[in-house]
Amino acid sequence: MKEFRIAVLPGDGIGPEVMQEALKVLDAVEQRFGIRCVRQDAAVGGAAIDAHGSALPEATIHTCENSQAILFGSVGGPKWEHLPPDQQPERGALLPLRKHFGLYANLRPAIIFPQLRDASPLKPEIIGSQLDILVVRELTGGIYFGQPKGIESDRAYDTMIYTRLEVERIARVAFEAARSRGKLVHSIDKSNVLNSSILWREVVLEVARDYPDVELKHLYVDNAAMQLVVRPSQFDVILCGNLFGDILSDEAAMITGSLGMLPSASIAGSGSDGIPFGLYEPSGGSAPDIAGHGVANPIAQILSAAMMLKYSFGQDEAYQTIFTAISDVLSEGYRTGDIASDGTTRVGTAEMGDLIAGKV
Amino acid sequence: MKEFRIAVLPGDGIGPEVMQEALKVLDAVEQRFGIRCVRQDAAVGGAAIDAHGSALPEATIHTCENSQAILFGSVGGPKWEHLPPDQQPERGALLPLRKHFGLYANLRPAIIFPQLRDASPLKPEIIGSQLDILVVRELTGGIYFGQPKGIESDRAYDTMIYTRLEVERIARVAFEAARSRGKLVHSIDKSNVLNSSILWREVVLEVARDYPDVELKHLYVDNAAMQLVVRPSQFDVILCGNLFGDILSDEAAMITGSLGMLPSASIAGSGSDGIPFGLYEPSGGSAPDIAGHGVANPIAQILSAAMMLKYSFGQDEAYQTIFTAISDVLSEGYRTGDIASDGTTRVGTAEMGDLIAGKV
Ligand SMILES: CC(C)[C@H](C(=O)O)[C@@H](O)C(=O)O
Ligand SMILES: CC(C)[C@H](C(=O)O)[C@@H](O)C(=O)O
Repeated sequence: MKEFRIAVLPGDGIGPEVMQEALKVLDAVEQRFGIRCVRQDAAVGGAAIDAHGSALPEATIHTCENSQAILFGSVGGPKWEHLPPDQQPERGALLPLRKHFGLYANLRPAIIFPQLRDASPLKPEIIGSQLDILVVRELTGGIYFGQPKGIESDRAYDTMIYTRLEVERIARVAFEAARSRGKLVHSIDKSNVLNSSILWREVVLEVARDYPDVELKHLYVDNAAMQLVVRPSQFDVILCGNLFGDILSDEAAMITGSLGMLPSASIAGSGSDGIPFGLYEPSGGSAPDIAGHGVANPIAQILSAAMMLKYSFGQDEAYQTIFTAISDVLSEGYRTGDIASDGTTRVGTAEMGDLIAGKV
Repeated sequence: MKEFRIAVLPGDGIGPEVMQEALKVLDAVEQRFGIRCVRQDAAVGGAAIDAHGSALPEATIHTCENSQAILFGSVGGPKWEHLPPDQQPERGALLPLRKHFGLYANLRPAIIFPQLRDASPLKPEIIGSQLDILVVRELTGGIYFGQPKGIESDRAYDTMIYTRLEVERIARVAFEAARSRGKLVHSIDKSNVLNSSILWREVVLEVARDYPDVELKHLYVDNAAMQLVVRPSQFDVILCGNLFGDILSDEAAMITGSLGMLPSASIAGSGSDGIPFGLYEPSGGSAPDIAGHGVANPIAQILSAAMMLKYSFGQDEAYQTIFTAISDVLSEGYRTGDIASDGTTRVGTAEMGDLIAGKV
C-alpha cells in the first residue's frame, strides 16, 4: 500500500469546516485506491497568531518539512487586520511558506462546470461552449521578493527582478501543461515598458523551441486583462510572472462565477523521494462572514486535495474520480448556498462532502 | 473671443480619419461658443518614423511646446512592430510625451451610454442601471520610469518607486474629481506585499483628511480586478499607480463593451497661463485593420476633444454640449459598425462626425 505524508493546515474562517469535508473525501479515495495519506495537523494564520503569536509558527514549518505535501485551508479575517501587513495571516503565512519550500509554480485552473454556467458574470455568448483556463504563475520571484525594497521618509520602492533560470523553469511548467491540454500558451508581459518583461519574453521564446507542438502567443498584461473579459475562450494556458499572475488569475477565477469551486496548487521541484512538494489550497478566501454556519462550499477544498493527489502523488485516476464525483453531484442538482439557483437542492457543507465522498 | 492653441497629432491607422471628425465637431463648437482653437499639425508615431525617422520628432515636441493642449489620435501598427520596443510608435511617442510635459494625471472614464448597454460582455443584472467609473491613473512615476532598471546577461530588473509628493498630487486629483461626482474613491494598491504600496496607502489616507465629504476605500489590485467584473457599479473614482492603472483602466474600459467610445486625458499641473496642459486621446488603439475604409468610430476622438475643452480650457458647457449631441445621435439610432446592432442605422466615420457636429 502506497503511503504519503501530508500536513493539514485548516487555518481560519471557513477553513476548518471545508477541510473536514476534503478529508472525508480523502478517506473515501484511500479506501477505493488502496493508498494512505498520513495526516498531521498544524496551526496557521490567525488561529496560529492567537495560539502561538505567529501566523507561521516554527512547529508548523517542521510539520510541513516532515510531510510530502501541504493541504491548506484558508487564512485571514477582520480580527487580524490591524496588524502590520507582514504579520497578518495571509502575507505572514503564505509568502514565507512559498519561499521556504521553493513553491515556484502556482497552478490556478479557472474552469466553468457546465452545470454552473449561469453563475458567470459574463454573457453566455461570451463564455461560449466551454471555459477551461490554467493560469501558471511564477510564485517565488518577481517584485514580491526582489531586492532592494524599502521605505524611506519621502519615498518607497520595490524591485521587479527575474533571472533567466526563474523564467525558464516556470515557462517549462506552462509548456508541459499545455502539451497535455489545448497546446496553446499565452505568455503575459509588459515588454513595451519593463526590462524584466523583455528578458521574460526572450526566455519564453527560447523555451518554446523545445515545444514545437505547442503554440505560443504574447500578450501585454493590460490587453490580457481585457481579453479575459471579452473573449476568455481563446485561452488555454496563461503564463505569468508573480504580480501579473496574481491579478490575472483572480480575474480569470472571477469570470467563472464560481470562486468557491476553484482549487490551486503551488509546487516545488521534485524532492529526493521523487515527489514534487506542493501546497494545495482553495482560490477563494476564508469568508469569515459565513464561517461556523455549516453553509460554506467545500468543493474548492476538495478539488485542492484532488490536485494534491495528482500533482504531488501522481494519482491521476484518483483526481479524475473526485472530479467526476463532483460533476455528478452537481448534475443531480445539489448546491451550497453560494452556487444555488432556482430548481436546485440546497445543501450544507457537510452534506455536500457526504454526497461527493459517497460517489467516490 | 477666447483663443487657444492646440497641437493636432493624428498619428497612424484610423487616427487621421477620426481626427478629421473631431476637428469638424470642434469647428461647430467654435461657432456656437465664440471661442477659437488655433490648430497646428505635427507628425507622431509610425507616420513620424516613416517621414522623420523617429516616433516623436523634435519638431513635434516644439509644436506641442508652443501649444496649450495636444489633441492626439492613435499610433502603432504591424508595420513598426519589428522595431525595438522603445522605438515603436506607442512606447516611443507616448512615454516621452508624458515625461516631457509632466502629464502625471491620466483620467480614463469608463462609462456606458444607456443606448449601448447591450454591448457590454457582462450580464445586464451585473451592469445594473448605470456605469460611470473614472479611473485616475498616475502617469509619470512608478515602475514605468523608476531607476535603476536594466538587463544583464542572466537577469533583468525594474524599480517600482513612488515619492510622497507623487502620490499626494495624484490623490488630490482623484479626490477633487470624486467631490464633483459620486464622492467615493477606491484606492488600489498591493500593500500586503509592496513597500511602494504601503507608502501609497499612507499618503492617500493623509490626503483623504482634506476631503471629509468623500468616502475612501482601499482595495488590493487583485481584488479590484475581480470586483470590476462582478460588481462594477460599486465604483465611482478608482485611484491607481501607473502599472495598476494601466491594467485596471483597460479592464474597466472593456467591460463597457464600447472601447471605441472612450476618451482619455493626460494632464499636467497648470502652466504660467493658468491652463493645465494636457494630452487628449482615445482609449482604443489605431485599429490598422479597418484604417482607410471610413468605417471607424470617431466618437472616442470627439469625446477626447470634448475633454480638452473641459479640462484644459475650462469650457464645461462645450463639453456638455458635445456629450449631449453624441447621446442624441445614438438615441436616434445611428451607429458605426463597431457598435451597430439590429434595428440601428449604420453610418460611416464622416457621417457620424456630420451628425454630431450638426447637433452641436
Ligand atoms: C495574500 C497575498 C500575499 C497573496 C498574493 O498576492 O500572492 C494572494 O493574493 C494570492 O494570490 O495567493
Ligand atoms: C503603449 C503603452 C506604453 C501604454 C502604457 O502602458 O502606458 C498604453 O498601454 C497606455 O495605457 O496608454
